[in-house]
Amino acid sequence: MIIILKDNPNKKQFDNLIQWLKSMGLDIHESKGENTHILGLVGDTSRVDIDLINALEIVEDVKRIQEPYKNANRKFHPEDTVIDVAGVKIGGGNFQVIAGPCSVESYDQICLIAESVKKSGATMLRGGAFKPRTSPYSFQGMREEGIKMLLEARKITNLPIVTEIMEVSHLPLFEDVDIIQVGARSMQNFELLKELGKLDKPILLKRGLSNTLQELLMSAEYIMVGGNERVILCERGIRTFETATRNTLDLSVVPLLKSMTHLPVIVDPSHATGNAKLVKPMSMAAVAAGADGLLIEVHNDPPHALCDGQQSITPEAFDDLMQDISHILPYAFRWE
Amino acid sequence: MIIILKDNPNKKQFDNLIQWLKSMGLDIHESKGENTHILGLVGDTSRVDIDLINALEIVEDVKRIQEPYKNANRKFHPEDTVIDVAGVKIGGGNFQVIAGPCSVESYDQICLIAESVKKSGATMLRGGAFKPRTSPYSFQGMREEGIKMLLEARKITNLPIVTEIMEVSHLPLFEDVDIIQVGARSMQNFELLKELGKLDKPILLKRGLSNTLQELLMSAEYIMVGGNERVILCERGIRTFETATRNTLDLSVVPLLKSMTHLPVIVDPSHATGNAKLVKPMSMAAVAAGADGLLIEVHNDPPHALCDGQQSITPEAFDDLMQDISHILPYAFRWE
Amino acid sequence: MIIILKDNPNKKQFDNLIQWLKSMGLDIHESKGENTHILGLVGDTSRVDIDLINALEIVEDVKRIQEPYKNANRKFHPEDTVIDVAGVKIGGGNFQVIAGPCSVESYDQICLIAESVKKSGATMLRGGAFKPRTSPYSFQGMREEGIKMLLEARKITNLPIVTEIMEVSHLPLFEDVDIIQVGARSMQNFELLKELGKLDKPILLKRGLSNTLQELLMSAEYIMVGGNERVILCERGIRTFETATRNTLDLSVVPLLKSMTHLPVIVDPSHATGNAKLVKPMSMAAVAAGADGLLIEVHNDPPHALCDGQQSITPEAFDDLMQDISHILPYAFRWE
Amino acid sequence: MIIILKDNPNKKQFDNLIQWLKSMGLDIHESKGENTHILGLVGDTSRVDIDLINALEIVEDVKRIQEPYKNANRKFHPEDTVIDVAGVKIGGGNFQVIAGPCSVESYDQICLIAESVKKSGATMLRGGAFKPRTSPYSFQGMREEGIKMLLEARKITNLPIVTEIMEVSHLPLFEDVDIIQVGARSMQNFELLKELGKLDKPILLKRGLSNTLQELLMSAEYIMVGGNERVILCERGIRTFETATRNTLDLSVVPLLKSMTHLPVIVDPSHATGNAKLVKPMSMAAVAAGADGLLIEVHNDPPHALCDGQQSITPEAFDDLMQDISHILPYAFRWE
Repeated sequence: MIIILKDNPNKKQFDNLIQWLKSMGLDIHESKGENTHILGLVGDTSRVDIDLINALEIVEDVKRIQEPYKNANRKFHPEDTVIDVAGVKIGGGNFQVIAGPCSVESYDQICLIAESVKKSGATMLRGGAFKPRTSPYSFQGMREEGIKMLLEARKITNLPIVTEIMEVSHLPLFEDVDIIQVGARSMQNFELLKELGKLDKPILLKRGLSNTLQELLMSAEYIMVGGNERVILCERGIRTFETATRNTLDLSVVPLLKSMTHLPVIVDPSHATGNAKLVKPMSMAAVAAGADGLLIEVHNDPPHALCDGQQSITPEAFDDLMQDISHILPYAFRWE
Repeated sequence: MIIILKDNPNKKQFDNLIQWLKSMGLDIHESKGENTHILGLVGDTSRVDIDLINALEIVEDVKRIQEPYKNANRKFHPEDTVIDVAGVKIGGGNFQVIAGPCSVESYDQICLIAESVKKSGATMLRGGAFKPRTSPYSFQGMREEGIKMLLEARKITNLPIVTEIMEVSHLPLFEDVDIIQVGARSMQNFELLKELGKLDKPILLKRGLSNTLQELLMSAEYIMVGGNERVILCERGIRTFETATRNTLDLSVVPLLKSMTHLPVIVDPSHATGNAKLVKPMSMAAVAAGADGLLIEVHNDPPHALCDGQQSITPEAFDDLMQDISHILPYAFRWE
Repeated sequence: MIIILKDNPNKKQFDNLIQWLKSMGLDIHESKGENTHILGLVGDTSRVDIDLINALEIVEDVKRIQEPYKNANRKFHPEDTVIDVAGVKIGGGNFQVIAGPCSVESYDQICLIAESVKKSGATMLRGGAFKPRTSPYSFQGMREEGIKMLLEARKITNLPIVTEIMEVSHLPLFEDVDIIQVGARSMQNFELLKELGKLDKPILLKRGLSNTLQELLMSAEYIMVGGNERVILCERGIRTFETATRNTLDLSVVPLLKSMTHLPVIVDPSHATGNAKLVKPMSMAAVAAGADGLLIEVHNDPPHALCDGQQSITPEAFDDLMQDISHILPYAFRWE
Repeated sequence: MIIILKDNPNKKQFDNLIQWLKSMGLDIHESKGENTHILGLVGDTSRVDIDLINALEIVEDVKRIQEPYKNANRKFHPEDTVIDVAGVKIGGGNFQVIAGPCSVESYDQICLIAESVKKSGATMLRGGAFKPRTSPYSFQGMREEGIKMLLEARKITNLPIVTEIMEVSHLPLFEDVDIIQVGARSMQNFELLKELGKLDKPILLKRGLSNTLQELLMSAEYIMVGGNERVILCERGIRTFETATRNTLDLSVVPLLKSMTHLPVIVDPSHATGNAKLVKPMSMAAVAAGADGLLIEVHNDPPHALCDGQQSITPEAFDDLMQDISHILPYAFRWE
């Protein structure tokens, strides 16, 4: 961390600052020029509050050099993390496709889709039971019933299941779920993240609509610092000025995240684009860019899906997509 | 709602659509030109899922005419809502300033600031007990203790208190709080909103970092549809490409929201700008634009605030600000 | 186009509107419900000024159904446009890579790079002679001299050359250039676009930093309406809140643009990411998503490039990239 | 400027860097810790290319401390610049309102509006002759004729005139214009800026739709470095995800720009909001925040304006607005 001081800082305030920094175990290198007065802090600065220093009267600016995340940082953990989900491995060269409907709608529907996506090569099943909807008048999910149906579908297909949590108090219902998903709108629900950090269960953490990569990694850090190191990151599009797609899929984060962290990185082209016709090309692009997996919405009857039918593809389209990505996968980019 | 059909829609799908729309109690006006085939839906379309229709194969596009919010809609409730907070009225021409520290840090601190801001004219006290922080290594608030200290400060000053909730299970701790604040990161924590809708207590709902006005009103609708009509909306800056300020304060939403809804609208210039020097001019601008109130961070020792010291102003600066806005208030814009 | 009227529109204003619309040769279908009064306009609405109608007192809202671009619209020109650039074809299944330095720096430099990228498989040469730089203190390009050097490099390698124009009065200098590039900052320099529409020369039109796809196509329309139909569109990243990359590469526009227009669509991963390490994975992703070509910065000595060295790759890295994309190209997505 | 080096930098590259920096007349302060190796550069770094250094293999990161603009920088010119426009002063406490139609449409129209806005207190007249329009099918302005009409309106009212330039070759037509406006889409038309720097005439420079304050000041620098120091900056809204207003008016830039530069700062609420009903409240807010002036669209018949009628206010509404801001002006914020 570098602190740039204003000209002629008040002596007492300066001494207080130095003392306070030293009390945190940091070494200080002072560099004083004609117009510049700089302090370089050496040591573990991840716990130093940059806003606090910035607010000091004698400080012009503060710049971080080290990343503020440690557990998620590839620098301190150069090997790829491989996460085992009920026998299915993801990360470190293991590529997986998670598929299923936006919402669980009925026992028959989820089982039908589960069997179908499994046949096409999906290795995990997704399905929403608790649904975050912008409008209180929209379908809110089958909730507890939905999770039970997912568990039934797992029994039949043996596919591990992924489903989203919206609220700490629902945690007991997720006991048998294989991966708990944290949705984009919950990425900075810090109380929830803390609770998930206490579990021994993989977490699929989606990037928020307007969150930076650093914030995504800080949210992963919330979970990891609690002891749960099994976090899968997911890019699902960000909010920009462009309205031709529902969100803007930010694919360059795939290789960039792989350089910053050892955690697996997957891509959700369905929510990112909100357009069934773009799911295949964006899946192919994500694979080429080196994603560790895909999260894809598949519905047997998209026009009558209770939620997000617009972005769901049919089982036939999914089968076609799986073949197309299989050609690209062997040549996909890998971060070294 | 208007549905624009594709050329030569499949007859059976078309009949199904018509039947389904009628089953929701809607009247349908068909308009068929050479290249256009349009259905105009008449009736209560707020419960119609626009995404679902958009996903139908025979549909080219769907446009909403009516707003999807009802309880918050000024059309159905032309009079300004006036909210009574322990005797202090806000909205409908009643302007109030809520001031206090970002975080409650100690009994002495909160009482000192409370007395000071009251003397300058603030009519409510704010203070964070549960703090949403990007980093798990940053100060997370005094939590339960913090709320107790706020209640003590209220006892001394008689100022109603406002503090933020992060999680449904903390609700019992907020029983004596006068206004519960929903922070920007929780604006779409729908499970939390549903619970707040069951309370008989004013809610201060902040706009999310990347949320539209319509989404803000839909979140207000979540609370109101539950029976709690006492919602105060708060603009606190949105996330844009500009990094010179922490967020971009979107002041035009003040008159725009006033035209869309009957709920009070206040502005938080402290979080919006993240810069103590911009708090005064932006407070003055918000007043001129017709805000029903301000939410301002004041700290007796900003450089040593445990959180967000960079954007806090001193009690002296706050006193100065209160005088400056008092000159503008009588001439402020009012939506009619 | 659909016009939604306010309740009980003034009779005289309504008659005036109807008359004015008819005078433009439009047919009008009126649909009148209890709460809705809608006019559907049938005919060529591309010349109707939507803002003008929106400003009328009796109008609630106006929605376009037809796209406002005609020449660029795939609906009226279903076949892919194939552009011939001095014998090199692009579009309609013809994939091309344009490579070269950000700036032309010397005769030796441009010839060296030209020969090198040709050997690796590039089929066109890029190089900036006129450089748009944020700061007046930065290198502004070799200008006229730079174009001469590019022409020399073409003589040696036979590669068609692409270079950027910044100003109408420079046009005579571009007479022998094979493709004239319109940079992101000039995408809405409408006077320049009009002049380029008079030429018989391909134009490479880059998307502006904050321009929508529709605006990009309207700028293409400016060129095409003048008679020059040879426009190549280029995605080069948009400006968003994320600062981890210089811009956010919006790859979903590749298939989306292919569905909207018949023009070739290429991708510039160098300017989009501003990071040499991301050029390869994003090139691979662009190819997988169905781009008709790539525009890549290559420099023999990136750290000493006079401009944008940060995002340039070496000839060796370029050679490696060309091999990697060659594996993906046969399986790339194609819009049908 | 601070250069943060990677661990164990290559000795030869390090020596080369040091030598190169010294050759630019910079002093270097080295600070070397266990994990940090930092160079502090002392001297005039405004001409140092930060991207070039960033691209060096041995460099981890580079941070600017000094602003890259000099002529526009308040640090080197603490007094407010007051610009004299044909006897009308703006800046340094002199507040002016520039009003008029979006487009000049006829001699009668511009004279009528000019006389009307003068009566209400406007001190300068605006009117577009060359119009940048997204669509080639929209009205493109009266061009040369329009400027002549503006000059006639000036003769009658004595109001200095402001009109937009789109292209260097049109400069001779602007010889008698009092202020040349550079529109948002031309803010980074660097060749145009260079030509304007050679004139002895005030320039009204609008912020681009997605340009930062620093970029705005760098564009001002382009003009000032050429010798023309009379630049007026104008905030007119930026492009964000919010679509409820045409753009997002970023009012916090008013005090922020005043702290960064000595140049006058004005606000255009008409283009920023695109909504006639928001022009008054946003004008009032801009005045309260300390703007040096306003740029407001006024049209005698907004629904029939040939361009941007949606955001124009009537002469009556303008008169009302002028009274409302007159109450706020005496108490407006002033940067000290």
